[in-house]
Amino acid sequence: MKKIILAPDSFKGTISAIRVCEIMETAILGEYPNCEIIKIPLADGGEGTVDCFLTAMPGERKTAKIKGPFLEEIQAEYAFFSEKKLAVIEVASAVGLPMVVGRENPELTSSFGVGELIADACANGAKELIIGLGGSCTNDAGCGALAALGVKFYDKDEKAFVPTGKNIIEISRIDLKNLNEEVKNIKIIAMCDVRNTLYGEYGAAKVFAPQKGADGQMVKRLEAGMEHLSIVLSESLDIDVSNLIGGGAAGGMGAGFSGLLNAKLKSGIETILDIVNFGDCLTWCDLVFSGEGKIDAQSINGKVVSGVAKAAKMKGVPVCVVVGAIGDGFEPIYDMGVTAIFSICNKPGTFEEILGEAEPNLAQLMENLIKYYQVRQ
Amino acid sequence: MKKIILAPDSFKGTISAIRVCEIMETAILGEYPNCEIIKIPLADGGEGTVDCFLTAMPGERKTAKIKGPFLEEIQAEYAFFSEKKLAVIEVASAVGLPMVVGRENPELTSSFGVGELIADACANGAKELIIGLGGSCTNDAGCGALAALGVKFYDKDEKAFVPTGKNIIEISRIDLKNLNEEVKNIKIIAMCDVRNTLYGEYGAAKVFAPQKGADGQMVKRLEAGMEHLSIVLSESLDIDVSNLIGGGAAGGMGAGFSGLLNAKLKSGIETILDIVNFGDCLTWCDLVFSGEGKIDAQSINGKVVSGVAKAAKMKGVPVCVVVGAIGDGFEPIYDMGVTAIFSICNKPGTFEEILGEAEPNLAQLMENLIKYYQVRQ
Repeated sequence: MKKIILAPDSFKGTISAIRVCEIMETAILGEYPNCEIIKIPLADGGEGTVDCFLTAMPGERKTAKIKGPFLEEIQAEYAFFSEKKLAVIEVASAVGLPMVVGRENPELTSSFGVGELIADACANGAKELIIGLGGSCTNDAGCGALAALGVKFYDKDEKAFVPTGKNIIEISRIDLKNLNEEVKNIKIIAMCDVRNTLYGEYGAAKVFAPQKGADGQMVKRLEAGMEHLSIVLSESLDIDVSNLIGGGAAGGMGAGFSGLLNAKLKSGIETILDIVNFGDCLTWCDLVFSGEGKIDAQSINGKVVSGVAKAAKMKGVPVCVVVGAIGDGFEPIYDMGVTAIFSICNKPGTFEEILGEAEPNLAQLMENLIKYYQVRQ
Repeated sequence: MKKIILAPDSFKGTISAIRVCEIMETAILGEYPNCEIIKIPLADGGEGTVDCFLTAMPGERKTAKIKGPFLEEIQAEYAFFSEKKLAVIEVASAVGLPMVVGRENPELTSSFGVGELIADACANGAKELIIGLGGSCTNDAGCGALAALGVKFYDKDEKAFVPTGKNIIEISRIDLKNLNEEVKNIKIIAMCDVRNTLYGEYGAAKVFAPQKGADGQMVKRLEAGMEHLSIVLSESLDIDVSNLIGGGAAGGMGAGFSGLLNAKLKSGIETILDIVNFGDCLTWCDLVFSGEGKIDAQSINGKVVSGVAKAAKMKGVPVCVVVGAIGDGFEPIYDMGVTAIFSICNKPGTFEEILGEAEPNLAQLMENLIKYYQVRQ
């Protein structure tokens, strides 16, 4: 009897990772009823991360009233695993870019609500936090969140304020003595899949702010704020985040949380694969199916497919990848452990035309991959 | 060491069957250098049939000056295999629909040139003829070709004429006594992949004439001519083609050649697979790759893929099919012997956008299919 692990990312904007697993399972069992299947829907620390953890482990969904990107009242969810005293938070649930469609402004949006989510998790007894950075609409280096947790930011007139992207440059002094006591004592992993720094050529503002609504002039102002914060941290607190890899994640939250909350920046997919004991699962199986919306040069670093492939390669397990689209520059992924890659596209058609066919096409491809796999048995 | 047969149709209008074989071979050997490969580019009796025979067997390409669809002078080619005294003719080379683009008129076009090609092959010593019906622009039931071979058609005033679709209805008497003596004595196989009859609901005029430029009124006139011819054949020569399956092929040439030249109507792909000894090749191999431009409900009857699959199923050899597009209604082909089907489409895109990528995409798919195939070795 064959044993197969299904470990896909979502097909972004089209099929969730959980649904991908369901479709794969149905298709495989249709062709191969005796197959044993483990479903591990994955995420890379961004959208879908909370769902991914809740699918992989028994836990509960917590809701908290927090402030949204423009400090409006919103409700946000996170996952809580009471046995492990672990909370999993997506910053996108508090300050997601889709929440500000039409009013994007990384100078004005605040990560305050992220801090409130962290505080809520601590109040619920969390001793370990996993925070998915990714998909934020902010560029405040996490100052809003830190303010929500008790960090005080003062301007040159010793007036306390909550910095956003616009006025980070006015920070003159940072005071940590009111930082939430519970937060001081927990272990924080910030899942982060970019290698961007807080500022500079590959910094948060230059690389990500344009996607968040900044024009060229705003990018320059945001960039100056990021660099200024780095200097203040260094000069007044002896904290150096200037070259931190991943510091630029989530509008600089990577640097802010690393510098002031002692968060450990870690690859999202590796964090998740650790938590779900993916390595142990692999010793059990003959074949892994992974997948994502599009495989290309970006898939190589810290994404679901490359993470799965690396882990599988160490155990000598083949990995078959199914995707919506095969782009350019993905080829190094073969050496990382991917055996073969197939697209669910089955005829010419624009993205809009084939969008509605994504699920049946995925099912069709999986059926054929299993039929073909059985050739050699 | 693995042994693989490559037996694809062309991807119509995109990649020739010979080129499909080359791309498949290169991709397979890149992943699997020790693989033994036999290439058998195929055709279904239509476009590419002559090339297919010439690739499979040592033979020569003959050229003849003949009359085109509007009786203009043209040159046409056919294949001649002197050892077997066999000629292979495509009617499309004499009266192909692409030859009359912009002036399509199935009432006026004549199959005369097809008869001249047959005569030329006989004059060259052919004792056996394989004629690929398919892709014609005519609807004259082969009367033009038969006239070229000496058959006389008379109207009610006993005036001889060469019938076209328009005036078949005027045939009053058919006289065979001047029929080319060589043609009388050869064996003719007419490769035919449609099950349409000479006339009626599924007749040549109703089903195919609209593609050849006929409007509704013309279809009715052509239909009347086909039915009239059937009656004349029956009443004056005691030849019944009224219900002949395939009689409607090539604008009724199926019926005309069967009725008056004693041609045997046979599936194109089966004829070709017979000639190339496909059954013997299969005993040698582990896996067959076939393919075509689009797989759908039409692929099930008498096309390359279904013919290959049927033959392979009898020998228990798996058949992996690669196609440009997967359409609707193809599923019965699994029971006919197809193991699995994959599309070369690897991202969203219109036909025009991806046309130029068909060859690299085919190569990419083949590489991945071979990588995945090797998983189980």
